[in-house]
Amino acid sequence: MNQELIKDQLALFQSNPTLKGLKPFESFCAGAPYLKDLQQKLGRKMVQTLEEAVQRTGLKDGMTISFHHGYREGDRTINQVVQLLASMGFKNLTLAASSLMSCNTPLIEHIRSGVIRRIYTSGMRGKLAEAISNGLMEEPVHIHSHGGRVHLIQSGEIAIDVAFLGVSACDEFGNANGVSGRSRCGSLGYAKVDAKFARNVIMLTEEFLPFPNTPVSISQDQVDFIVKVNEVGDPSKISVGAARVTSDPRELLIARFAADVIEHSGYFKDGFSVQTGSGASSTAATRFMEHRMRKKDVKAAFALGGISGGIVELHKKGLIAKLIDTQSFDADATESLRTSPSHFEVSTNEYANPSSKGTYCDRVDVVILSALEIDINFNVNVLTGSDGVMRGASGGHCDVAAAANLAIVVCPLIRSRIPTVVNKVTTIVTPGECIGVLVTDHGIAVNPRRPEVEQRLKDAGLPVMSIAQLYARALEISGRPSPIEFLDKIVGIVRYRDGSVIDVVRQIKPMD
Amino acid sequence: MNQELIKDQLALFQSNPTLKGLKPFESFCAGAPYLKDLQQKLGRKMVQTLEEAVQRTGLKDGMTISFHHGYREGDRTINQVVQLLASMGFKNLTLAASSLMSCNTPLIEHIRSGVIRRIYTSGMRGKLAEAISNGLMEEPVHIHSHGGRVHLIQSGEIAIDVAFLGVSACDEFGNANGVSGRSRCGSLGYAKVDAKFARNVIMLTEEFLPFPNTPVSISQDQVDFIVKVNEVGDPSKISVGAARVTSDPRELLIARFAADVIEHSGYFKDGFSVQTGSGASSTAATRFMEHRMRKKDVKAAFALGGISGGIVELHKKGLIAKLIDTQSFDADATESLRTSPSHFEVSTNEYANPSSKGTYCDRVDVVILSALEIDINFNVNVLTGSDGVMRGASGGHCDVAAAANLAIVVCPLIRSRIPTVVNKVTTIVTPGECIGVLVTDHGIAVNPRRPEVEQRLKDAGLPVMSIAQLYARALEISGRPSPIEFLDKIVGIVRYRDGSVIDVVRQIKPMD
Repeated sequence: MNQELIKDQLALFQSNPTLKGLKPFESFCAGAPYLKDLQQKLGRKMVQTLEEAVQRTGLKDGMTISFHHGYREGDRTINQVVQLLASMGFKNLTLAASSLMSCNTPLIEHIRSGVIRRIYTSGMRGKLAEAISNGLMEEPVHIHSHGGRVHLIQSGEIAIDVAFLGVSACDEFGNANGVSGRSRCGSLGYAKVDAKFARNVIMLTEEFLPFPNTPVSISQDQVDFIVKVNEVGDPSKISVGAARVTSDPRELLIARFAADVIEHSGYFKDGFSVQTGSGASSTAATRFMEHRMRKKDVKAAFALGGISGGIVELHKKGLIAKLIDTQSFDADATESLRTSPSHFEVSTNEYANPSSKGTYCDRVDVVILSALEIDINFNVNVLTGSDGVMRGASGGHCDVAAAANLAIVVCPLIRSRIPTVVNKVTTIVTPGECIGVLVTDHGIAVNPRRPEVEQRLKDAGLPVMSIAQLYARALEISGRPSPIEFLDKIVGIVRYRDGSVIDVVRQIKPMD
Repeated sequence: MNQELIKDQLALFQSNPTLKGLKPFESFCAGAPYLKDLQQKLGRKMVQTLEEAVQRTGLKDGMTISFHHGYREGDRTINQVVQLLASMGFKNLTLAASSLMSCNTPLIEHIRSGVIRRIYTSGMRGKLAEAISNGLMEEPVHIHSHGGRVHLIQSGEIAIDVAFLGVSACDEFGNANGVSGRSRCGSLGYAKVDAKFARNVIMLTEEFLPFPNTPVSISQDQVDFIVKVNEVGDPSKISVGAARVTSDPRELLIARFAADVIEHSGYFKDGFSVQTGSGASSTAATRFMEHRMRKKDVKAAFALGGISGGIVELHKKGLIAKLIDTQSFDADATESLRTSPSHFEVSTNEYANPSSKGTYCDRVDVVILSALEIDINFNVNVLTGSDGVMRGASGGHCDVAAAANLAIVVCPLIRSRIPTVVNKVTTIVTPGECIGVLVTDHGIAVNPRRPEVEQRLKDAGLPVMSIAQLYARALEISGRPSPIEFLDKIVGIVRYRDGSVIDVVRQIKPMD
């Protein structure tokens, strides 16, 4: 039967020049060979070992591998995969993780042995960060923001050859979300981007669920291979570190001031929108908003983030209509994403990429951001510590600061006897032109670019002073710290969200 | 302040060759100029007129425009846009609509005047189809399947310059779904593909809803311009034509046979999956499944489609766990998509593209498909009528037939005194090797490739005969129809789902 059809076809193509360039029909499975066999059709993505999956992608030395950091300090995927790639003999890989954490200390040996030659990440912490700050790598690490990462991917600078995406559960075709299975990390906002852009996607899953696994965050049409592993991540460690909940009275004081600033900023109106970052004071500010919202009968249209328990509580109480979630900061957020019909997961392209066709951060009224340092020009450092060592992350900081109507930075004036408000930040991550207000435990400073906000806060009786005054106060208390000494070698390149270089991090000088 | 930052930057770049190829930071809005101005930031996609939107995309003569057919016969977008493009003087455009209907008759004049030079579509009906079958166009129309369309887009043959996507409602950033607003069409499965691949997306909306409009089927990061229009479509006409509900006793007889075939096919097990196409007997078969499912205590894991009211009813009764919906065939389906947490919208890439990383049709056990003609080799024609005129659509026919475990074709043996079972179909759309069973009102024939199915149906006492017997019976009743006369000119090229040419349609010879 097929023979006859093919004979007809040949005659047709011979006699019709209009068909030139097109190919004749061959068989129902010529373009989809997997349809020849039921086992192939249904099970073609399932591989027994991670090693086999890697082999089937055709990964080669010098290529780029990517990971999401939805499990934050609980991540079990990155180390596991890089360990395997090392044992398989891979060299000179570019590691493009959406972020790296203290848990990634084992990467040090793989950098040393040449498995990993370049790194793109939003940030790093712990021993890995210390080693890199001390000159571990030959090539500087590229530090990008969450939105900027998507920009670099779209522009082709980060061309992901193989994305290794750890999920709690998926079906045999790779449909996955972060709210099914045992080890739920909540929003897969970072992973969605890798799934979309990577040439190959290997899904690592702890469990299989019946097809079709819904809701679909990462879709079957984005996944090449699926492999079951014992562990992809430990969700109990998501809220460790940046996303912790504070009971520190100074942080609570700052949080209360921040809530006051929001209330009197001019943006605290029914239908406003808000983002509270991952810092302790920042997340704590949420707690102080409820009373103010009830008092003024103000409800928020949406909260963006980085969603944590405090925001979820306001959502449950009807004070925030919708949650737009690119990363779930704790189990409350994950559970809310699973159960609330008004809690939505978005990719980092939708969240914050400046060259995306539209980001949620453009629609945020007020954002609360943290800082390791802020200088008298309001430039912010969220990357390097007071010792010059990288111990933070760019995150969505410069993205939302640029886009929101009002960016409020919260930080203590002094941290461990070192001033946070400085003459010039060690590393610029977010340019001062984007920061509206600085809230410290010693007072509030408003960027001179925002005189209208300054007036409103003064009218409300808040302790507003100039940032120069705050800087002077810091020096008064702690004295002028001795400058950090750096070597010439560049160990980190800080990329602004549009891909430009806003600063570099240099190798710290070893202690004598 | 910025001055100082830029000065630092210059010095940095001059002294560090490692930064070569990167650009220095300029300002927070250098890469996102829309952030300079609040009006721009929030309203940059909103345009007053469709004409302005078209101008802003940079559309030029010879480019490709695309549309979705979610409103089917109720579509008000295609004619409106092409009329405007004609008045703006555009010529030689390629029209890539996911399908065309009787309502698109006005396109005839725009083809005649040279506004549209090429067409890609799943099918066509009415006067437009007649005119094209009579040689209206210089270039043949490319007829593709729903899955095949995505394949052609992915391969670059259909490179969409501007997608015009009509939706009932969206917000000011372009977040849209098919279940909000007045004129709801349900699933936006076709539009999702255009939104993803088009260089420019113009969203035409009847209404604006507050930001963020959720759930999100087409996301803000896919939409360039938004314009409010009076009408994008009339949902009451979605179920006209192919998606109608039948009360014809012959169609009901066939539907009952089809349900019998499913029951005894060997695939009727708990957790099975099913698709019922858009034909009358096909949708009607759903009605006869409930009793069989209850009797044998069988529930379906999911139904794929083309979802219509009958399927929704089984879903509501708990007999079908999940609905996977690429197109909503009636208001019941749309309402179910809006309200059921287990009713999911999927793109045609997820539905049926053979070169996608995974399609739902690969996971379907049994599909019921219709036919205009089927020949003794089980080849199926769903495109040309008995007069040789195009009056149908490829749809998902060849996609699901190729992928499902068992494809059942349902059709009456004779239609308007012309046999449906023929020696050789006028036009092959789906190759016979993909068809398992033919169900007619005169009996059931099983493809010799599926002896195990034939045995099961015989064992169940169903009226199984050979397709040759059915063919003979058709001739006996209606006599041998006189052959259709065609001219040489090719008016349609039938593309198989993998892009190959499976057949051509020639211009019909004018009646003397």
